[in-house]
Amino acid sequence: MSKKEDPKIVLAGAGLAGALLATMLGQKGYRVELYEKRPDPRTGQGGPGRSINLALSTRGLHALERAGIAADILKSAIAMPGRMIHGLDSSLTYQPYSKNPDEYINSVSRAQLNIDLINAAEKQENVTLHFNQRCIDADLDAPAADFVDGDTGETHRVAGDLLIGADGAFSAVRGRMQRTDLFDYRQDYLEHGYKELTIPPSEDGGFRIEKNALHIWPRRSYMMIALPNADGSFTCTLFWPLKGPISFDALKTKEDVTRFFKEHFPDAVPQIPDLEDAYFANPTSSLVTVRCGPWNHGGKTVLVGDSAHAIVPFYGQGINAGFEDCEIFMDCVEESAPDWETVFSTYYRRRKKHTDTLARLAIANFKEMRDHVGSPKFLRKKKRERLLHTWFPKWYVPLYSMVTFSRIPYADAVRRARNQELKVQSAGWAIATLFAVVLTIFVVSMI
Amino acid sequence: MSKKEDPKIVLAGAGLAGALLATMLGQKGYRVELYEKRPDPRTGQGGPGRSINLALSTRGLHALERAGIAADILKSAIAMPGRMIHGLDSSLTYQPYSKNPDEYINSVSRAQLNIDLINAAEKQENVTLHFNQRCIDADLDAPAADFVDGDTGETHRVAGDLLIGADGAFSAVRGRMQRTDLFDYRQDYLEHGYKELTIPPSEDGGFRIEKNALHIWPRRSYMMIALPNADGSFTCTLFWPLKGPISFDALKTKEDVTRFFKEHFPDAVPQIPDLEDAYFANPTSSLVTVRCGPWNHGGKTVLVGDSAHAIVPFYGQGINAGFEDCEIFMDCVEESAPDWETVFSTYYRRRKKHTDTLARLAIANFKEMRDHVGSPKFLRKKKRERLLHTWFPKWYVPLYSMVTFSRIPYADAVRRARNQELKVQSAGWAIATLFAVVLTIFVVSMI
Repeated sequence: MSKKEDPKIVLAGAGLAGALLATMLGQKGYRVELYEKRPDPRTGQGGPGRSINLALSTRGLHALERAGIAADILKSAIAMPGRMIHGLDSSLTYQPYSKNPDEYINSVSRAQLNIDLINAAEKQENVTLHFNQRCIDADLDAPAADFVDGDTGETHRVAGDLLIGADGAFSAVRGRMQRTDLFDYRQDYLEHGYKELTIPPSEDGGFRIEKNALHIWPRRSYMMIALPNADGSFTCTLFWPLKGPISFDALKTKEDVTRFFKEHFPDAVPQIPDLEDAYFANPTSSLVTVRCGPWNHGGKTVLVGDSAHAIVPFYGQGINAGFEDCEIFMDCVEESAPDWETVFSTYYRRRKKHTDTLARLAIANFKEMRDHVGSPKFLRKKKRERLLHTWFPKWYVPLYSMVTFSRIPYADAVRRARNQELKVQSAGWAIATLFAVVLTIFVVSMI
Repeated sequence: MSKKEDPKIVLAGAGLAGALLATMLGQKGYRVELYEKRPDPRTGQGGPGRSINLALSTRGLHALERAGIAADILKSAIAMPGRMIHGLDSSLTYQPYSKNPDEYINSVSRAQLNIDLINAAEKQENVTLHFNQRCIDADLDAPAADFVDGDTGETHRVAGDLLIGADGAFSAVRGRMQRTDLFDYRQDYLEHGYKELTIPPSEDGGFRIEKNALHIWPRRSYMMIALPNADGSFTCTLFWPLKGPISFDALKTKEDVTRFFKEHFPDAVPQIPDLEDAYFANPTSSLVTVRCGPWNHGGKTVLVGDSAHAIVPFYGQGINAGFEDCEIFMDCVEESAPDWETVFSTYYRRRKKHTDTLARLAIANFKEMRDHVGSPKFLRKKKRERLLHTWFPKWYVPLYSMVTFSRIPYADAVRRARNQELKVQSAGWAIATLFAVVLTIFVVSMI
């Protein structure tokens, strides 16, 4: 337990979760040294990072509001109140995400969101930013982190009173924890990888396909999705097996690519003019789920965001969960600082089972999006959920709505959804029984 | 795919699996450079390693026979044909492991077994041993491994045509694989750790408790076991939670230790004269399960033994599975060398699901040993299994027997055990139904 009233906090990683947490800590008067491996993204040198856009929803927005920056960030967001399903026959089917028209997810640019968050962090006088500093190792007890300076190539050690690892799915801070006794760790890759492609704006600067929707081309064992960008373009992401007879690995020539897309995504082909060149120019990336624990090393070092729980992107919750981490973390700071061991361990205990649940949900939703989403059965199920939610708004809330449009902790949402389904089934049986009894009485009274 | 007919094989780790595999490869004429982090154990400098004794059974013995060294190793082994259960009231209950008296497990000394295997490896003229060389990293593509020389402290790189990582549960070779794309990895610690204690030989050099048994003191949430050694001593291992109100962490003084042991292991206390001193002198160690995949990096680097699948010790199968790896590996070498990519990937495919199954069995058996083993219900179940096995020896084989006394692959054994149970249940229902029908006919005929 640190007794220091003004601890020096070393925070590795000024990605989305790291920059937000630095802002929140700065707002509470804490001194934060924030280190980021990439160059300052505001100078235009930084790459776009892992993916180009994100779906920001209730949990993430609530955290941004707490930091007072939600309104600014929403200015350039594009509302997506539903899914647009693209059939093999080029048919379009629209599915609203909620019965409630003011419940929608927001397509935001990762790069712009990161810049906004870095600006917010920099505004805090206690927060100092250091770019081009890649964290490569840590001393968990000191605590201290080792950074390689991108300009000089030299490694230097930065010590502090507390070390926060927000250094992403391949975290060096977590890498060090992993070599300590009793640290549970798990990384699981999907057989599917992804590749990004772009639908440019139309010639008049408008949107070539429906602006206010998350587009899905579900093809059972794989899919493509597209999210709108503020400039009129869409970022398409093809999720496909990495290896095997029908996979990224199997498309060798431009002709292969053209044939594959014309066969499986016929209506998308005319919208992606540089399809073949982009296909080979853009990287194919893998998809990993990381689970670990405990997230803290005593009261000295702690993990937040993807470094603690990287997930696959299919529930659109990665960044929302990362921002929610920051809120829960700040709750624990407000409750227990400067007893940092209690702060860190309470944060871990409150959060762990919910991010584990989210990891499972995210993997399961891939199957739903690529396979079920296009089926009549799925459409009936969604319709039934909306009807029940409309008739019994307090009593029945679809799981997707609880995850996306509420702050009910993930594991609690899953439990509630299961109970709801059991009740609906019981009610169904009760109605059927009642009907049978009434019918019997009617028949008997007729004889 | 290497086309080389005489590849140079760098093998990191001359522990049990590494030394056996080097021997087998040497016997087939392959050139092996075998590196071991510890000093030569034959000089008496090396520590005993992770635990002092092991339970060698059918799978392990079969592999040792293939290398022609089983008979030598069995000379100093002590047969354990059953479990001796020590009750809280100091009562003793003996449970044979098999209906068949020549099916037993063998208590062997890890240190002596390792020396025997190193001697066997050294006898192969193509195998060269290098001690005091700790593997700290690897280049998976070269392939090559980096070793720290224990005498000079200097690091040097050893390149070869093939690299085999047999460097144990905390493998540096696997550590490098883990940082490659698409490598699945998982380490899970138990809440329980372990501590070893010793029951010395009696004054006349005999065994203070039953020699030919694996002793268990089952105490529901924890347990102690003891295995006999050739010198008349027993190695006791206490498996207990690491933290919490009733845990290793909670015993602070010698008085605490005495009180705890007298209360929970009353008949063991007089047999462990240095109990209190040994308790504080001996380390408390953790128990980890490691699962990963793929075990090979193309046709260049591959893992065997604990580096590929470290398990907890409760099924007595760790070393048996490691030796079985060597056999399956050599099968693949004989089938496909010098197409090493096929050798390695076939070995991985054949083996992975079985070692995953074993990892689950080993964790599940902890619960069985510490909790169920002492219960009347468990005794009835074991008795029923033995009876069924006696009546239908071809048709019904208990899972423990298939795992321990056969070479049926682990996952196949579990599937077969499940089918057997279903058939027993069906037969039970069929008999009950038949009985009911006969009874009904009898009653009706009486009216």
